[in-house]
Amino acid sequence: MMKKASDIVSQFKRLHSHKPVKRDLKLGKAPGTVTYLGRRAGGKSIIDSLLYDPTVYKKSEVTDISALASPPGGQQTQWVNIVGLSEEALMDELGKSIGLNTLVVEDIVNTEQRPKMDEYEDYLFLVLKMLYPDGKGKIVKEHVALVLKERQVFVYQEVKADVFNGVRSRIEEHSGRIRSRGADYLLFALVDALIDNYFLVLDIIQGQMDELEKEVYTRPKTETALKIQQLRKDVITLRGWMSPAKELVARLISTESPLISKDTRVFLRDALDHATEIQETLHIQRELAFSIMELYMSNVSNKMNEVMKVLTIMASIFIPLTFIAGIYGMNFRNMPELEWEYGYFIVLGIMFLLLVGMLVFFRRKDWL
Amino acid sequence: MMKKASDIVSQFKRLHSHKPVKRDLKLGKAPGTVTYLGRRAGGKSIIDSLLYDPTVYKKSEVTDISALASPPGGQQTQWVNIVGLSEEALMDELGKSIGLNTLVVEDIVNTEQRPKMDEYEDYLFLVLKMLYPDGKGKIVKEHVALVLKERQVFVYQEVKADVFNGVRSRIEEHSGRIRSRGADYLLFALVDALIDNYFLVLDIIQGQMDELEKEVYTRPKTETALKIQQLRKDVITLRGWMSPAKELVARLISTESPLISKDTRVFLRDALDHATEIQETLHIQRELAFSIMELYMSNVSNKMNEVMKVLTIMASIFIPLTFIAGIYGMNFRNMPELEWEYGYFIVLGIMFLLLVGMLVFFRRKDWL
Amino acid sequence: MMKKASDIVSQFKRLHSHKPVKRDLKLGKAPGTVTYLGRRAGGKSIIDSLLYDPTVYKKSEVTDISALASPPGGQQTQWVNIVGLSEEALMDELGKSIGLNTLVVEDIVNTEQRPKMDEYEDYLFLVLKMLYPDGKGKIVKEHVALVLKERQVFVYQEVKADVFNGVRSRIEEHSGRIRSRGADYLLFALVDALIDNYFLVLDIIQGQMDELEKEVYTRPKTETALKIQQLRKDVITLRGWMSPAKELVARLISTESPLISKDTRVFLRDALDHATEIQETLHIQRELAFSIMELYMSNVSNKMNEVMKVLTIMASIFIPLTFIAGIYGMNFRNMPELEWEYGYFIVLGIMFLLLVGMLVFFRRKDWL
Amino acid sequence: MMKKASDIVSQFKRLHSHKPVKRDLKLGKAPGTVTYLGRRAGGKSIIDSLLYDPTVYKKSEVTDISALASPPGGQQTQWVNIVGLSEEALMDELGKSIGLNTLVVEDIVNTEQRPKMDEYEDYLFLVLKMLYPDGKGKIVKEHVALVLKERQVFVYQEVKADVFNGVRSRIEEHSGRIRSRGADYLLFALVDALIDNYFLVLDIIQGQMDELEKEVYTRPKTETALKIQQLRKDVITLRGWMSPAKELVARLISTESPLISKDTRVFLRDALDHATEIQETLHIQRELAFSIMELYMSNVSNKMNEVMKVLTIMASIFIPLTFIAGIYGMNFRNMPELEWEYGYFIVLGIMFLLLVGMLVFFRRKDWL
Amino acid sequence: MMKKASDIVSQFKRLHSHKPVKRDLKLGKAPGTVTYLGRRAGGKSIIDSLLYDPTVYKKSEVTDISALASPPGGQQTQWVNIVGLSEEALMDELGKSIGLNTLVVEDIVNTEQRPKMDEYEDYLFLVLKMLYPDGKGKIVKEHVALVLKERQVFVYQEVKADVFNGVRSRIEEHSGRIRSRGADYLLFALVDALIDNYFLVLDIIQGQMDELEKEVYTRPKTETALKIQQLRKDVITLRGWMSPAKELVARLISTESPLISKDTRVFLRDALDHATEIQETLHIQRELAFSIMELYMSNVSNKMNEVMKVLTIMASIFIPLTFIAGIYGMNFRNMPELEWEYGYFIVLGIMFLLLVGMLVFFRRKDWL
Repeated sequence: MMKKASDIVSQFKRLHSHKPVKRDLKLGKAPGTVTYLGRRAGGKSIIDSLLYDPTVYKKSEVTDISALASPPGGQQTQWVNIVGLSEEALMDELGKSIGLNTLVVEDIVNTEQRPKMDEYEDYLFLVLKMLYPDGKGKIVKEHVALVLKERQVFVYQEVKADVFNGVRSRIEEHSGRIRSRGADYLLFALVDALIDNYFLVLDIIQGQMDELEKEVYTRPKTETALKIQQLRKDVITLRGWMSPAKELVARLISTESPLISKDTRVFLRDALDHATEIQETLHIQRELAFSIMELYMSNVSNKMNEVMKVLTIMASIFIPLTFIAGIYGMNFRNMPELEWEYGYFIVLGIMFLLLVGMLVFFRRKDWL
Repeated sequence: MMKKASDIVSQFKRLHSHKPVKRDLKLGKAPGTVTYLGRRAGGKSIIDSLLYDPTVYKKSEVTDISALASPPGGQQTQWVNIVGLSEEALMDELGKSIGLNTLVVEDIVNTEQRPKMDEYEDYLFLVLKMLYPDGKGKIVKEHVALVLKERQVFVYQEVKADVFNGVRSRIEEHSGRIRSRGADYLLFALVDALIDNYFLVLDIIQGQMDELEKEVYTRPKTETALKIQQLRKDVITLRGWMSPAKELVARLISTESPLISKDTRVFLRDALDHATEIQETLHIQRELAFSIMELYMSNVSNKMNEVMKVLTIMASIFIPLTFIAGIYGMNFRNMPELEWEYGYFIVLGIMFLLLVGMLVFFRRKDWL
Repeated sequence: MMKKASDIVSQFKRLHSHKPVKRDLKLGKAPGTVTYLGRRAGGKSIIDSLLYDPTVYKKSEVTDISALASPPGGQQTQWVNIVGLSEEALMDELGKSIGLNTLVVEDIVNTEQRPKMDEYEDYLFLVLKMLYPDGKGKIVKEHVALVLKERQVFVYQEVKADVFNGVRSRIEEHSGRIRSRGADYLLFALVDALIDNYFLVLDIIQGQMDELEKEVYTRPKTETALKIQQLRKDVITLRGWMSPAKELVARLISTESPLISKDTRVFLRDALDHATEIQETLHIQRELAFSIMELYMSNVSNKMNEVMKVLTIMASIFIPLTFIAGIYGMNFRNMPELEWEYGYFIVLGIMFLLLVGMLVFFRRKDWL
Repeated sequence: MMKKASDIVSQFKRLHSHKPVKRDLKLGKAPGTVTYLGRRAGGKSIIDSLLYDPTVYKKSEVTDISALASPPGGQQTQWVNIVGLSEEALMDELGKSIGLNTLVVEDIVNTEQRPKMDEYEDYLFLVLKMLYPDGKGKIVKEHVALVLKERQVFVYQEVKADVFNGVRSRIEEHSGRIRSRGADYLLFALVDALIDNYFLVLDIIQGQMDELEKEVYTRPKTETALKIQQLRKDVITLRGWMSPAKELVARLISTESPLISKDTRVFLRDALDHATEIQETLHIQRELAFSIMELYMSNVSNKMNEVMKVLTIMASIFIPLTFIAGIYGMNFRNMPELEWEYGYFIVLGIMFLLLVGMLVFFRRKDWL
Repeated sequence: MMKKASDIVSQFKRLHSHKPVKRDLKLGKAPGTVTYLGRRAGGKSIIDSLLYDPTVYKKSEVTDISALASPPGGQQTQWVNIVGLSEEALMDELGKSIGLNTLVVEDIVNTEQRPKMDEYEDYLFLVLKMLYPDGKGKIVKEHVALVLKERQVFVYQEVKADVFNGVRSRIEEHSGRIRSRGADYLLFALVDALIDNYFLVLDIIQGQMDELEKEVYTRPKTETALKIQQLRKDVITLRGWMSPAKELVARLISTESPLISKDTRVFLRDALDHATEIQETLHIQRELAFSIMELYMSNVSNKMNEVMKVLTIMASIFIPLTFIAGIYGMNFRNMPELEWEYGYFIVLGIMFLLLVGMLVFFRRKDWL
């Protein structure tokens, strides 16, 4: 069982890479220094462009970064997708080309950056966390940075994730409003897709919680406590991310930036509603996890009670009986009972009566 | 006992269908897509109309949806009741006919939507949760959506519930103010009926809590902990619903919408009072549930103490006596006591004195 | 002991009649319906009047309700005391006569109404809870409603309680300011008397807490946990009442109503101070009750430790000794020690040494 | 040990005279009635005066109360110190002489009054709690009331305490700013002295906490839990006093009263800083006390584990061995082993192997 | 093990020198008295100056304090670094020379001063705590005071720490913006360096937490509880410092002082972000530490359960068997079984069957 402990520990490791992998790389460096902090160093960055308006739909790979410096012609909206953030020089160059503050570029490649929104004169900068189940019951966390400029949205990701596929196909299939609205609506659609995905994570957590509660009640094991602990850590960590994420959406709604139209704010209010709901659900789940732990503790105590009862019953019945047998096992010369014809059977009878008496006693105490 | 565990689990399942049944159906879809999320797919929707003013009272089934597009003639008030939300196309059509935003229709059929209020130019939209005991000690939760337009109130429900019967008969019997006041008063009456019903649920919970407290004190069992856990979940879940519901009523009072008259706001303040009281009662019940769990834990420990005392008394008395018997059961050639005329009786006497001494000792320790 | 459990439960039942006795009577009725919810149905209502100014002092029973419709002549102040609220029709009539909103009359007879204050054009309406010890160590809770009109104060009670006696005799004996000030000062004096009475309740609770703490430390029993639980419930329930009561006083101070003079507001600030102090004391008592429970739990564990030590010492000493005796009780033909002249005494000596060694071992472990 | 319990209880009694000694004396009396509530009834009040300006320094006992009615001549500042509050008539007379509201005089002699500040037209009234160690490790709490008038500060105390000695000698020795500044600076100096003294109390509590933590870890006893409980009560009670005290200082800074000069407000901000620090330290100490209790509980469990291991090892080793001895102690006629030449030694060998096996087993389980 | 306890206690002592070493030195002294409270009395103070602008870079030791009274010539920025704060007279002189309020100088040498910011007419005063790992796994805390004047920053430290080395080399190597910006940017860079260093401390704590969690699960010992307690104290203490530190940065951003330029405020917002993140991480870590303690408690209970099961199994199997052996060890004259040819073997068989039955029973109960 001891050997399995480490397996279980690793099996449940998922959201908790609290240890910022290379945070100390940044210590002492000037603010604004572009330093990649992720776990995927060495990969190539791929930059894609998606241009659309109600009639146009054009997908292409971006090779010339300088082409991104100005918004697309006509009333077209451009979604620039950057996958892979480890090429610090490229990130720096791209940032300069589209006019980003170096502090912003620093935050783009800082995969440990918590959710936030910064407003600049001609663009908005957002950092969010993307969460999705990896299919094996684990939850994967990814860093996503978004830049909204006039008619352009830049999406920085570490890996190409499915979470934006819905938005992509809505654009491609011209379904819903998305093709006829601007970059701010695209930004909303992306943020909304990210937040909606949190519900999946909540469902997974809730499922595990329900399962654990059952396990706690029917067959609590030592590992169960660790699983509960793991769930608590998940919930605590998610709560730590949701509060800045919600604040971010609230600020998107209330910002005075002309980049966000009044129409889009109505939709954002819906996203804020979802964020609030997620936060409250996490609050409830935190309390539930706490109470499951208490249930576990009470069941451990109950199990111990059961063990103790077995011991007490066995010992209380047989120790006195053994004592009686011990008496008549003594070797005194003068022990009249030993000479009786039916002494042995009388003693056996007494023992039997004692046994029955004990059983009745324990039955009355409701221990049997 | 193990087999009963699952029964108990299912027996107590009631409010906690946290698992949004088909939430993933919505992932990736554009906001505003009308997707029914409830458990009653396939049913037919029934639309009823109730027209009244101080003199008129007319009940009818609605077959032509377009007739609902404009308010009734004269100064009549119309209560449109829609039971059954699973016909997505019909819901969509009805929504368009009466001029609802698609986001609103989306929320109407989203049975997992938490309580909220949205203001639009010419209507108010409310989502609330209806709770009522099902007669078998369980609590049923239903999704209710309300739309207030000029002289019209639309009530969307999944099933026709008794909770609005009181309002219905007050209209029919012309009792109270309801016939002589407008649609906003009707909306208030409906919201008030929903909220008042929560008191019944609180009473049921309080009753179960009192019963559990008694059970905890007189005969705590393993299942008791699960029942406490269940109550805690109920209270936590209800609290999660009450806070947006209360906020909703507060916003109804403070809204600048001309749809709510000043007179009705006075009544709404009463409903807000009730919502506050419910919230505070839930807060108290949460603390009580927590303290009942602690009481349970302490009683489990006390029971174990009792078990241990029995074991300790039995073992402490008979183990030394058995040892003495063991000594005189030894087969040494030279054991003078064995030859004594009254050796056996002396030893029996010593054993008896020891027994009495032990009993006195335990009596003094208050263990007997 | 099992039989006493229910006694103890009932003995401690006092504040917790959470179960609104007839709340369901009101379900479905229109707001503003006058429905008595108390436990004293069937009694007669008695209406008394007390008229005073610095020179006048007149006590009388009120038989003609209509005489209460207008303020008394001159600059006299009138204290109308209504004892007994179960005559719904009379209450309704009285309310109409003095111009109360039906919602107000509904709240007057709703003995479950939590503390609140409502402002109307020409009167203020207050609901408070009166608490007083019944002399047998129990705390009685009563519903009190107050209406302040110009130069009139109406006090609605279920039973005539001592709590206002002080105010009554101050008026009678012309002591303090009360005779020379108006109805608002009378209202303050009544509210102040109610709130001051809470201190008595706090003192009773504190006394019980101190006693329990002592009991927990010196002789924790199973009932002790139940008593702690009871105290916690008292404190939690009182806290639930104090927060609206405090808010009520704060609103009396800040109201723009001309019924409350500036001078009286200075006195009310003192009452607010008291309410704040009560609230904070309850907060402290809640924490204390929680920590007493923890102390109890730790002492239960300590007691169990003590029990276990006795068992372990007895078993650890005598089980090995019994084993040795068992060895020499074996019947092998060839056991040289049995034939030794002093074998028996040598074994007794070894046993004695073992016993002493064990005692030293346990002494070192600090178990003896 | 039972006898010591009460000693320990009394030894730790210090801050917790929650029981307002004579609060019921006040029930039913009119607000503004001067009723002494302290524990030092019967003593004489002594009134001292200290007059100073940069050049003057005059100490005297006050015999004529009416001389205090007006501020001293020139630009002198007067510190009037009243020690002993039980002479209700004198207090009343003094109050009237210097123009205090009767509510203020009531609060001056109410030694249970919590910290507060009241502003009147021409004076400010403050109540604070003075805490100081009594040299025997206990903490003494005293009621202090302060009145600031133009160029006069009245200090009401129950006993003459050392806490203001520093201020006294700074005036006498003309050290620091104090002689050249007015009455408001004197008030600040006194409040600052009171608050600074709290740090001493915090240090004592912290010291006891550190000691307890050590005791919990190295030799937890039953009394330890009571000591922790005592510390928790101290911290909770202090917290209950600090929050109104801090609020008081904050209001002194923000008051519009011309009695407090702008310069003095800068100094008061420093006192506010200290009050904030004390409050936060108490918050930390509350958490620490809670965690020490948890540590205690875990160590009690660990001790029990240790006890159980000893029992289990002893019983598990010797019970089976005794069983084997029991087998060969049976008196069957036909037991071949008994006749073997080396039967006895073989059995002894088997027993030894079993013993070693058990020891290895427990060693592996890490129980030895 | 008892001896190691104190070692462990001292090994974990690090942040918790709550006991202000010489706080009582200050009691009774006038506010503004310069009294050194640190642990490094007797050392010499060293004052260094660093002068720079985009072209100039000049390092020198300051011997003439009066030269610091006015800002450097041209547009140069001066960083004055004071290491060693125990020379009270020198500190006083330096303070007077550069025009600091005595309250400020008092706070500079008060090494127990909590983080704060004070604004004066021509300078800003900041106190912060510097934390860094000492290389042996312990965390060292140092007091740092900063004064921002026009084109001058004064840094007061007790020891020269590495934490500012990054800033120093950025100035020396002319990297980043620092040389071309003013004193306010230098202040920001120093505050940012201090706050960034907290992340290292968080990482250390997180690492220890992860390790402890593992230890709790795989091999919980008595010391483990103490280590968890230690971590909790660290987290609680850090939280106590972060909240004023964050407030300080927020006030730096919102101050109306012209000493902070608009550009620098943008950078400070980044520092505020970091402070918020640290605070939230500490909040999470507090919850984690709490849940690790619970996990520990549950594992202690589990271990006890395991111990009890071994005892119960051993006792339940062998006590009844021993009883049977005891029966046939009795010396009754008439015991027919003893005479049977195969009596012994039959009894052995019965014993074996009992043993197997017991094992099956415990296996079913899942105890084996």
